[in-house]
Amino acid sequence: MTEPLRLGIAGLGTVGAGVVKIVQRHADLLAARAGRPIAISAVSARSRDKDRGVDLSAYAWENNPAALAARDDVDVVVELMGGAEGDAKASVEAAIARGKDVVTANKAMLAHHGQALAEAAEAKGAVIRFEAAVAGGIPVVKALTEGLAGNRITRVMGVMNGTCNYILTRMESAGLTYDAVFAEAEKLGYLEADPTLDVGGIDAGHKLALLAAIAFGARVDFDAMEIEGIERVTTADIAQAADMGFKIKLLGVAQMTGRGLECRMSPCLVPDTSPLGQLENAMNMVVLEGDAVGQIVLRGAGAGEGPTASAVLADIVDIARGTRVSTFGQPATGLVKARAAKASAPTPYYVRMTLLDKPGALAKVAAKLGDQGISIDRMRQYGHEGANAPVLIVTHKTTRGALNEAIAAMAETGVLQSEPVAIRIEEV
Amino acid sequence: MTEPLRLGIAGLGTVGAGVVKIVQRHADLLAARAGRPIAISAVSARSRDKDRGVDLSAYAWENNPAALAARDDVDVVVELMGGAEGDAKASVEAAIARGKDVVTANKAMLAHHGQALAEAAEAKGAVIRFEAAVAGGIPVVKALTEGLAGNRITRVMGVMNGTCNYILTRMESAGLTYDAVFAEAEKLGYLEADPTLDVGGIDAGHKLALLAAIAFGARVDFDAMEIEGIERVTTADIAQAADMGFKIKLLGVAQMTGRGLECRMSPCLVPDTSPLGQLENAMNMVVLEGDAVGQIVLRGAGAGEGPTASAVLADIVDIARGTRVSTFGQPATGLVKARAAKASAPTPYYVRMTLLDKPGALAKVAAKLGDQGISIDRMRQYGHEGANAPVLIVTHKTTRGALNEAIAAMAETGVLQSEPVAIRIEEV
Repeated sequence: MTEPLRLGIAGLGTVGAGVVKIVQRHADLLAARAGRPIAISAVSARSRDKDRGVDLSAYAWENNPAALAARDDVDVVVELMGGAEGDAKASVEAAIARGKDVVTANKAMLAHHGQALAEAAEAKGAVIRFEAAVAGGIPVVKALTEGLAGNRITRVMGVMNGTCNYILTRMESAGLTYDAVFAEAEKLGYLEADPTLDVGGIDAGHKLALLAAIAFGARVDFDAMEIEGIERVTTADIAQAADMGFKIKLLGVAQMTGRGLECRMSPCLVPDTSPLGQLENAMNMVVLEGDAVGQIVLRGAGAGEGPTASAVLADIVDIARGTRVSTFGQPATGLVKARAAKASAPTPYYVRMTLLDKPGALAKVAAKLGDQGISIDRMRQYGHEGANAPVLIVTHKTTRGALNEAIAAMAETGVLQSEPVAIRIEEV
Repeated sequence: MTEPLRLGIAGLGTVGAGVVKIVQRHADLLAARAGRPIAISAVSARSRDKDRGVDLSAYAWENNPAALAARDDVDVVVELMGGAEGDAKASVEAAIARGKDVVTANKAMLAHHGQALAEAAEAKGAVIRFEAAVAGGIPVVKALTEGLAGNRITRVMGVMNGTCNYILTRMESAGLTYDAVFAEAEKLGYLEADPTLDVGGIDAGHKLALLAAIAFGARVDFDAMEIEGIERVTTADIAQAADMGFKIKLLGVAQMTGRGLECRMSPCLVPDTSPLGQLENAMNMVVLEGDAVGQIVLRGAGAGEGPTASAVLADIVDIARGTRVSTFGQPATGLVKARAAKASAPTPYYVRMTLLDKPGALAKVAAKLGDQGISIDRMRQYGHEGANAPVLIVTHKTTRGALNEAIAAMAETGVLQSEPVAIRIEEV
């Protein structure tokens, strides 16, 4: 195995340039580890003239990424353009059609077309690796697919969008509103061109959908996910959750329940003493739970040139070493669509409301919880702000359905100043 | 690849029985993931009659583990007996001599004989995998060898002996002495037959030596490690470190410095807000730092039936999938002995001392630090306890050598009640 592994890199943005830099800087290290040299044959990007801070003169240039994938001197196509459709998909399909392996960081493409691409790759004996698509530099795809291969996976959780975690952390530490911190994040260049991908939970949802497919041996099913972004989280939610010992995180949870696969990305409360609760700024964290291993927590940078390029290189070295693992950890043709759980498993909830200053107001809302069989774990009523009294309630485990019924009934009592806010508490 | 991968399991203690249980319980899952069935052909242990809570009747029995390794119906030898020498080593050598792959949880054997065994395996085209030898269920060998293969590793740190972390955590939370908690841990069965392996830092040292070999492409060199156990940590050290915002951990640190490879396992102070500082009870944590990825933190159970068996199964599934990675991540014959750093890199230190109630005592000891070029970051003097005054000092970065000189000079001033305690502060 002394023949070099020859790469064609499609996409020379931050991550693509980062990959080129590592291949150049660590040529000897990579060759020693992979057992053969890692070489770049050709590259492709939108603009040939842009200065990317890296010398590309030794590589052939292709304007068309699908043409790059077709080149005879390219063994592996490294797709780093992004986007669920278009050039990215075309270049990956062109590679697979020729039986070439693919390394990609493209979560959107795999969340939407992962099953079809994995089946196509298998038919040709090619592999698709995507460590960089999930949680940046954290080797979580590998940990789940290989490191925990002896486990029935029971739950996967993750904070996998650094921008959202930055926004929530900053809202808490600076006491700023969502809009103010969003504007800051935009100015810092933390947001995608379409910020809804970040703050709407879609980007993190793509990632969770991929992990869920591996974890539960199911087809990727992004459309079955329940997704809620962080746009409606208020500074008051954060401050008052903190008062009860919680942090608010945009948390993905995938778990197999008796009623099917539950897969959701939404703001959740987690204990402030838990590893997830202590995760600050743009860091990512993934929690993997298996029947043998218990709970494994992985933490690291979820984005950026170095961390993402590190993940891309891990896949490249795997391929150079001859490692062949099915895209989602088992043959794609054997994956079945998991029955989606219609409702989430019961969890405790945090409910925040403001009561009008009427006699017996608290008793009335508490009674409506009781009518739905929801018992109260902890309750805190704040001193009256003018006429109205903010109340925080932590319930015991209940379903969202029962809670929604109780909240609707509360509204009819006429003691609520505004609609209560209810946020799931994830037991971590 | 529908032929089963046939295992011979040598050692049926907690971990061995755990591996058998998973192979039985998850036969379908393992076959789907590995692409072929995982089967057990034969087992071996000291006593055939012992009830291990698992049905062994379908497997051949061998009294001699080397004979088990030699059987024609065994493809992979799973060595779970432990011990650096004797039967464990003999069975691994017998497997390698026949070109068979080995999966082992044996950190002591690999720390002492890893280089020779890896070379022998390579000569025969066999692989040795040892995920279970380091930090139990945490897939850290895989993360380092494969997941971070694109990085020059800059530092590896870890709390990798759950018993020591339990003892230190319990000393703090209950305010008990080391001896009292040691007795508790013994009663709970947390300690090895020879407890020095745990509390003396040797077991954790074996693990760090293996990670350092992978991280820095060097031969395993357990003898070059600096090892200090937790036996001399006092309740006062813990309480007063907490007062300055630190936790005491038995922390392994391996880093390549300009003066060579520094590799030590010793009590260290870490900030109580850091992931390492927040690690409680018997949990393990490994921190990996690379030039591209930044810092990755992995947390999980470091011991016990399920977690350790999970790691063993990961290696088995890798082999069943056809994954071939060199024992220490690159060809063993190419590994060189790293120059050992004679002294540790400078770090801040925490120094605790009790001064006699003499005029100018504090000024005298501070002057001795200054004479060695050691500047003081923070200092705290407690109210006099009778005649004597406890003093805590946090220094800026200095070497252990300079600090030892200063402490020797302090002793000559006649103002110390007893010898100062100095503990390294690791910047995490």
